[in-house]
Amino acid sequence: MPGGSGTDVATGAHADAAALLLRCRALVRPALTGAVGRLHPWTGEMAAFSLGWSDVTGTPEPGASEGKGVRQALAVLGAEAVGADGRVAVAGAVAVELVHAFSLLHDDIMDGDAVRRQRETVWKAYGTGPAVLAGDALFALAVQSLAEVPGAHTGPALRRLSGTLTDLVRGQAEDLCFEDRPWTGPGAVRPDAYRMMAEHKTGALLGCAAALGALLGGAPDATVTALDRAGRHLGVAFQVVDDLLGIWGDPAATGKPVHGDLRRRKKTYPVLAALAAGTRAARELAALLDASGPAGPLDDRAAARAAELVERAGGRDAALDEARRHLDAARRSLRGVPLAPGAARDLDALLAFLLHRAV
Amino acid sequence: MPGGSGTDVATGAHADAAALLLRCRALVRPALTGAVGRLHPWTGEMAAFSLGWSDVTGTPEPGASEGKGVRQALAVLGAEAVGADGRVAVAGAVAVELVHAFSLLHDDIMDGDAVRRQRETVWKAYGTGPAVLAGDALFALAVQSLAEVPGAHTGPALRRLSGTLTDLVRGQAEDLCFEDRPWTGPGAVRPDAYRMMAEHKTGALLGCAAALGALLGGAPDATVTALDRAGRHLGVAFQVVDDLLGIWGDPAATGKPVHGDLRRRKKTYPVLAALAAGTRAARELAALLDASGPAGPLDDRAAARAAELVERAGGRDAALDEARRHLDAARRSLRGVPLAPGAARDLDALLAFLLHRAV
Repeated sequence: MPGGSGTDVATGAHADAAALLLRCRALVRPALTGAVGRLHPWTGEMAAFSLGWSDVTGTPEPGASEGKGVRQALAVLGAEAVGADGRVAVAGAVAVELVHAFSLLHDDIMDGDAVRRQRETVWKAYGTGPAVLAGDALFALAVQSLAEVPGAHTGPALRRLSGTLTDLVRGQAEDLCFEDRPWTGPGAVRPDAYRMMAEHKTGALLGCAAALGALLGGAPDATVTALDRAGRHLGVAFQVVDDLLGIWGDPAATGKPVHGDLRRRKKTYPVLAALAAGTRAARELAALLDASGPAGPLDDRAAARAAELVERAGGRDAALDEARRHLDAARRSLRGVPLAPGAARDLDALLAFLLHRAV
Repeated sequence: MPGGSGTDVATGAHADAAALLLRCRALVRPALTGAVGRLHPWTGEMAAFSLGWSDVTGTPEPGASEGKGVRQALAVLGAEAVGADGRVAVAGAVAVELVHAFSLLHDDIMDGDAVRRQRETVWKAYGTGPAVLAGDALFALAVQSLAEVPGAHTGPALRRLSGTLTDLVRGQAEDLCFEDRPWTGPGAVRPDAYRMMAEHKTGALLGCAAALGALLGGAPDATVTALDRAGRHLGVAFQVVDDLLGIWGDPAATGKPVHGDLRRRKKTYPVLAALAAGTRAARELAALLDASGPAGPLDDRAAARAAELVERAGGRDAALDEARRHLDAARRSLRGVPLAPGAARDLDALLAFLLHRAV
């Protein structure tokens, strides 16, 4: 990743982070399985499919298409960072993983995406109506899992989770509205609007995960807020890195076609930053993006040319800078409060792991 | 309604209940408007449309297609019934109205219903993806509205609300699964499975509304539980009455076609009770429902014949009995705890109002 410190260190951190993710998953999994097991059998089957635990016939398929479990790890590390046992964060970890599953599931419906993690999406496999229901079930279960935690922290924890839920939905609304906005002129999407969208859509839940862990671990408000802020910056950095990979990433590593986001004429950070530069390359890029009408995808040649223009107009560098800035801000936020050294190192390893794929 | 006490009294109670609904709406509306106003403009527009506040262009259209506001009234009356000021229930009232709006919105997607309250449904007017998002926004806002209430009752209130959310989603799952089950044989839907579905789908939120009002009013657990139970029975009674109206209701009053639910071969209580009777009429009914295959609607003649057979097999009487039983149980539940006499009378008026249309 930008700001990384050489290959050997990065590889070591990578291995640490991978081990960390597995440790947190093992800690959280029984409660997560228990929660999903409380669902109606039909919605439970769709939920298990969406979590990558089983195939479309309901047959267990362990590990095949699971996510990395970043949010549950952040919750556990949030608690450990404030000196608590990671186990106190489990209900929060369950809640954020369920919210994440819900949001992927409903976003795939809204975006019309038919494939996720090399498999059919839920709406594609089960139908749109059932997928709406499965998402609702995960959403409700997330809130319930946290609401049922006894103790004085439940109220504040639910306040954070519900604020995050509205942020998440707002981020998706912002993202969907970007599609209809022009590339240039007064209605164009500016990089700061993008940043806000990314914070809502991706950052809010990452911040909530870490904050919930700290909160359930009994941390003071300032620490909870610092972890929340770190997660939000991480989210923006992550989204920008994702945009970089969507244009210049190795298809073999990302599983996405080369220049995929450009073909689909997605309003990603590198493109928006390039357009905002106002240079000749920026103008040519705008003309190219406008050329084939507002809906149709770009062809191979046009997409390759667009990538070149984004780079020439400084969009790639601006995106790398932006990702670095938010990674630094996340780290600063963590350094601003007293954290248990071991867990702070773990959090740092996780940050590096999540972002270093952009190098 | 069955069990009612004469036309004059019923008419008086009807007027009381209508006035009551207006009073509660006036009390809750500013907070509800304020909550919806916090949404992203796009989801806010869809939310206002779904609440019947504006038309599809976003132009205010006050009162044209609003619901009765039963849930907010139950919340306010729940507080008043335990001797509190109705105002303490406002956040709970906002939450249950938002949950109700969410559930109608997403259910219309799942059921493919294009019309509600003489207007296009949200998915029909705005598209499926946006409607999924609008429902999610209402859902998140509901939880947030309640989570932000300061005070010791917030945790327990959210526990109730989130339990209700999972019940609601479960009820919808049960209802959707009914469609694929046979009319007869071991896989057939029995009246008790229907009762459970109706309690989850309709009763849980009515019970939650009244219980939240009492809870926010500082009532002891026994009273909160009694109000919850009363609302759940009310919900089952309401759903069964709705089924009766879906077969024998006056289309001019219900806005639904005559024998509509039979044409659509819906598994309603009167039909299920008739089939469970095992009489000759029940067997003829089963044959008729099976005859035109599992999917196609019944024609006029077949639907009229089915209505006749349901009645002959005792399905209509069984449904009336069932509705009466649940109305009585709701009243018993209310009488079992000490309630403020004025509010108890109001609750009774509301019960009668909601169910007397079935007479």
